[in-house]
Amino acid sequence: MPAMEVNPDLQKERNTATFDPNEFSVFWAGGADKYKEKKALEKMFLEDPALNDEVPTSYMSHKELYENSLRKACLIGEKIRELRANGEDGVDTYNALLGGSLGAALVKEGNPIALHYVMFVPTIMGQGSMEQQVEWLSKAWDCEIIGTYAQTELGHGTFLRGLETRADYDAQTQQFVINTPTLSAYKWWPGGLGHTANHAVVVAQLYTKGEFRGLAPFIVQLRDTDTHMPLPGIDIGDIGTKLGMKAVNNGYLGLKNVRVPLNNMLMKNQQVLPDGTYVAPKNSVLTYGTMMFVRCALIRDTAQSLAKASTIATRYSAVRRQSPIDPKEPEPQIMEHTTQQLKLFPQIAKAIVFKTTGDGIWNMYNVLSGEIELGNLDRLPEMHALSCCLKAICSADAAAGVETCRLSCGGHGYMDCSNFPTIYGMTTAVCTYEGENTVMLLQTARYLVKVYGQALSGDELVPTVAYINEAIKLKYFVNFDGSLESIVKAFQFVAANKVRVAYEQIEQRRRQGHCTEVAANLSGVFLTGAADLHGRAFLAESAYKELMAVSKTVSPALADVLKVVLELYLVDACLNRIGDFLRFIDLTDADVTKLEMRLESCLKRLRPNAVALVDSFDLHDRVLDSALGAYDGNVYDHIFESTKKNPLNKEPVNEAFHKYLKPFMKAHL
Amino acid sequence: MPAMEVNPDLQKERNTATFDPNEFSVFWAGGADKYKEKKALEKMFLEDPALNDEVPTSYMSHKELYENSLRKACLIGEKIRELRANGEDGVDTYNALLGGSLGAALVKEGNPIALHYVMFVPTIMGQGSMEQQVEWLSKAWDCEIIGTYAQTELGHGTFLRGLETRADYDAQTQQFVINTPTLSAYKWWPGGLGHTANHAVVVAQLYTKGEFRGLAPFIVQLRDTDTHMPLPGIDIGDIGTKLGMKAVNNGYLGLKNVRVPLNNMLMKNQQVLPDGTYVAPKNSVLTYGTMMFVRCALIRDTAQSLAKASTIATRYSAVRRQSPIDPKEPEPQIMEHTTQQLKLFPQIAKAIVFKTTGDGIWNMYNVLSGEIELGNLDRLPEMHALSCCLKAICSADAAAGVETCRLSCGGHGYMDCSNFPTIYGMTTAVCTYEGENTVMLLQTARYLVKVYGQALSGDELVPTVAYINEAIKLKYFVNFDGSLESIVKAFQFVAANKVRVAYEQIEQRRRQGHCTEVAANLSGVFLTGAADLHGRAFLAESAYKELMAVSKTVSPALADVLKVVLELYLVDACLNRIGDFLRFIDLTDADVTKLEMRLESCLKRLRPNAVALVDSFDLHDRVLDSALGAYDGNVYDHIFESTKKNPLNKEPVNEAFHKYLKPFMKAHL
Repeated sequence: MPAMEVNPDLQKERNTATFDPNEFSVFWAGGADKYKEKKALEKMFLEDPALNDEVPTSYMSHKELYENSLRKACLIGEKIRELRANGEDGVDTYNALLGGSLGAALVKEGNPIALHYVMFVPTIMGQGSMEQQVEWLSKAWDCEIIGTYAQTELGHGTFLRGLETRADYDAQTQQFVINTPTLSAYKWWPGGLGHTANHAVVVAQLYTKGEFRGLAPFIVQLRDTDTHMPLPGIDIGDIGTKLGMKAVNNGYLGLKNVRVPLNNMLMKNQQVLPDGTYVAPKNSVLTYGTMMFVRCALIRDTAQSLAKASTIATRYSAVRRQSPIDPKEPEPQIMEHTTQQLKLFPQIAKAIVFKTTGDGIWNMYNVLSGEIELGNLDRLPEMHALSCCLKAICSADAAAGVETCRLSCGGHGYMDCSNFPTIYGMTTAVCTYEGENTVMLLQTARYLVKVYGQALSGDELVPTVAYINEAIKLKYFVNFDGSLESIVKAFQFVAANKVRVAYEQIEQRRRQGHCTEVAANLSGVFLTGAADLHGRAFLAESAYKELMAVSKTVSPALADVLKVVLELYLVDACLNRIGDFLRFIDLTDADVTKLEMRLESCLKRLRPNAVALVDSFDLHDRVLDSALGAYDGNVYDHIFESTKKNPLNKEPVNEAFHKYLKPFMKAHL
Repeated sequence: MPAMEVNPDLQKERNTATFDPNEFSVFWAGGADKYKEKKALEKMFLEDPALNDEVPTSYMSHKELYENSLRKACLIGEKIRELRANGEDGVDTYNALLGGSLGAALVKEGNPIALHYVMFVPTIMGQGSMEQQVEWLSKAWDCEIIGTYAQTELGHGTFLRGLETRADYDAQTQQFVINTPTLSAYKWWPGGLGHTANHAVVVAQLYTKGEFRGLAPFIVQLRDTDTHMPLPGIDIGDIGTKLGMKAVNNGYLGLKNVRVPLNNMLMKNQQVLPDGTYVAPKNSVLTYGTMMFVRCALIRDTAQSLAKASTIATRYSAVRRQSPIDPKEPEPQIMEHTTQQLKLFPQIAKAIVFKTTGDGIWNMYNVLSGEIELGNLDRLPEMHALSCCLKAICSADAAAGVETCRLSCGGHGYMDCSNFPTIYGMTTAVCTYEGENTVMLLQTARYLVKVYGQALSGDELVPTVAYINEAIKLKYFVNFDGSLESIVKAFQFVAANKVRVAYEQIEQRRRQGHCTEVAANLSGVFLTGAADLHGRAFLAESAYKELMAVSKTVSPALADVLKVVLELYLVDACLNRIGDFLRFIDLTDADVTKLEMRLESCLKRLRPNAVALVDSFDLHDRVLDSALGAYDGNVYDHIFESTKKNPLNKEPVNEAFHKYLKPFMKAHL
């Protein structure tokens, strides 16, 4: 479609914004250098016509979709080779191209070789011995072999100890014999496993000298490197279509007496000697670290999802006109409806808060990693507890927020050309992978109940839970004056009390004779509630600290906007948990009404800058890939244009008319 | 797949249930006769192999999916002809076959000729004059012509007055000239419009003698009845892929000087005489009635969605074992985890309450229809207000409930073979069609604020809002003793206070100088909150009345179970709005803890009958169409079986390997 003028309603929004979106865009990208890198990558990848789909992927069959995605994945792999050859690659680049918004734009329903770069290679680096790294890494880097990471099974996901795949060491041949003894032991879900990878890291229960040793990772060749035919003993395929990420080629894998040499077990942390002697890892905590790392990264992904969804819905709401407010006036931009603002603006605020919190957590993680390297594991449990509940809360809120944005666009949000269905499919997946959300909240809760007991015994708690010490000293929270600080403090007081109630529930059930674990299960309702409030209290504090800090480094115009964002975030968060606030803090009906009026006031104050704020997220039109959300705002033209790409519309009369409908219509004549 | 034995974990659940699921199944179907009819229809349609897909629809391209769905739609049409010939058809049968669970099972992604039966024919019956009915109905009933109903436009949905399509009467030729003057005037969304229907009822702004007369319906021929080619002036096609209902063939339609004879305007309610004289309808309220009718029917649909989703997730949770509760014990059925019960059981309870409330509303609607026929329109506004908020609440809760069930199945719920993605796509659509949910809540709120003013003036209110009279007399609600009646009464008290706050907000803004409409817009947050509580108070009361009434007519064993369902529903509903309860009723932290403990107690008491309850919904395996939810519970076998139908798995090596991946892997060698 030729370039069009910007829709005048959208242009008006841009003309009247009170701050410079470019200033925010640079901050959002992580500084001027990263902003430049981002633009360069977008130019190199998004402007390549071979990476642009003529026919939108939603019209393809599952098979066509896979083939198209593999084609593009290989093109991207070629470009990555170029970047490597020029020394222009790096972790950020891989993340951007294979995960992130850019990656999702390039191979819309998922890149079937992404796991090769983001899991297979890093696992060899992290868990292979020096010799193993030498042996495998250059082949892997050069993509002579394509690997994936096979851990989850049909019968077991989050609970790793339940995995059934086993590797028995045969000292005579110096080989491991790997088996999936039952159907539920089949590996299930690894990306690219179906028809793409020819190698995998397979996680299995290790047995040597007839004794069980725990989990270990093995490099297993799956397919012939030349013919790509599955090797003997390998039962492999694609698990089928899904809600989202439809082209990832998630696979299944059954192994029947598959033998791999001794040296294919990754031996950096634990070893099996040729005679079968097992050398246990010095520190079992290290894998724990990787999971934390991934969860921290996911928090930033959820911010991106919200940024995309809120950009599309906000631009659409500036262009769409419907339903007069004042019957004497023409139909307004739907963004004038307060109820519409209430759907959109909190998502914008959450995008910003999740991003800054994600950055903060990332820094905490890096400090922690340094400490771990030095052998100091003190803050690991605290950080684990925090990353678990934040992963759960941010992913759940982001998924709900994407749907709120979609629904705010009415029927048009339901069309695939809005891109909401794809964004939702990717976002809601985060609620399940890398630790199912409820399991995550229960892990956090277990930690909170433990430290609550310590606090009762007078221990000083570590920083992220120190608010529990304070709350125990207070009986009532009296300083709720409505200031932002007081909302943050109130969140902490409420969280501490939720933890107290959960603690008391467990204690009560223990007194009734239940063991701690059964008592905890019976108190599940209370435990997840406590973990939820703990995470939200952290988010509130982090929002306050990070956004106030940023405000001091930017122009006054931008700082003013960020303060409205912060206030909106906190007031909205508080009202979303108002039951907990009223339960533990003495607030009146009038106090709540005041908070609700304040929410409305925040919406009104954000209104003039809503479009400029989403513009600041600086999402390329191809990244948004939405008829409703394009920068030029010509919504109806883009929607109509999308119908021209519909293969059904290539012929005025579909053959099914002649085959089925006409005979049916004429049958009784 | 050959019949397998029932999974022993699932069989154990059935053996230990305390009531007879068949008794409930008959009640659920609407009595013994309807139960028999249902079984007969299932036999006739579900056991026809031609209506069974060899390859699941999720593997098809959009075009293949449409063609397959049209094929099946014509087969169903043939069978409907048989039923008619035998006098075995009826409104219930059409609804079951074209909407409902059975319809969804037969043509999984939507039947492209369903709108012909459920909108085109009924519109001619409802809005055509006797002569017009004679002219069109037999052709339509016999499917000599296939029609659809074209109202919504690209630029306007819920706000009908904004429609732009116009029909100008030309007295000289005695024809209407119909035009879509802009792109946004294009008709958008009608099912079957794309490539299936050859006629449509087109809703347009009527002009005669140069004057605007309001909306009117016109029968417009779209395609040649023989060649199916679009007629001159008709621009028509499929709007493209969507989140769900992917095979409905939703279409767009542009009209350019399309002429239809005078007699093609449906003239039962309003007329245009040959000279162009316009005769206005006697009663503009009648169309209002149709929308209400549809919304009432939707409430029952939401119950079906929840029944399907909760059946799948509950059976899966009885079979899946993971994560020990007590580390000394083996992994339990995941339904043993309290947090899992908390996800599933409230959805079962909601399915039952939405169904009985839907039935109750249906009866109210029928009484009301009778009154309207007699010219008594008194209860119309009340009923409109109620149907709007219930449509919004039940659809939103059902969509959220389906997702909760999906997420409770972890990664497996994300696979299309679980059927959750399709159920969600159908359920969430209800939030938008037949009146967007927020608009619905605002319509209810407008009514509530009006009657609140009347109550303040001392008027006695009509039955469904009479609780406002009572609440105005009370200053405090003191009788919250935890009995189920007191929860219902408390809901009403809280709802009345939410209405009060909304009323006061509008009044306050009017005093500040805003007109009523602007004041209402500024108070949007308060208004939707009030409408939400009004609907939930009605649901609570209805749940209590209907389930207590049913309990008296069934066996004591079933009555006991239904009472637990009722208690669970009410306690859960109350906790979900606990912020509102605490805001207006003086409850302590300990009171809330008690409610939470009671919730857990309800879960525990429902636990032994959870599988029997979902069995009672009596959903045929083909209706569930879920590897996770089949009656025999052989979850892993069914999942694995589904991979055998995946076209990607028909070949061990996909051609894309040779075309793209191999050259890429070997490129640098």
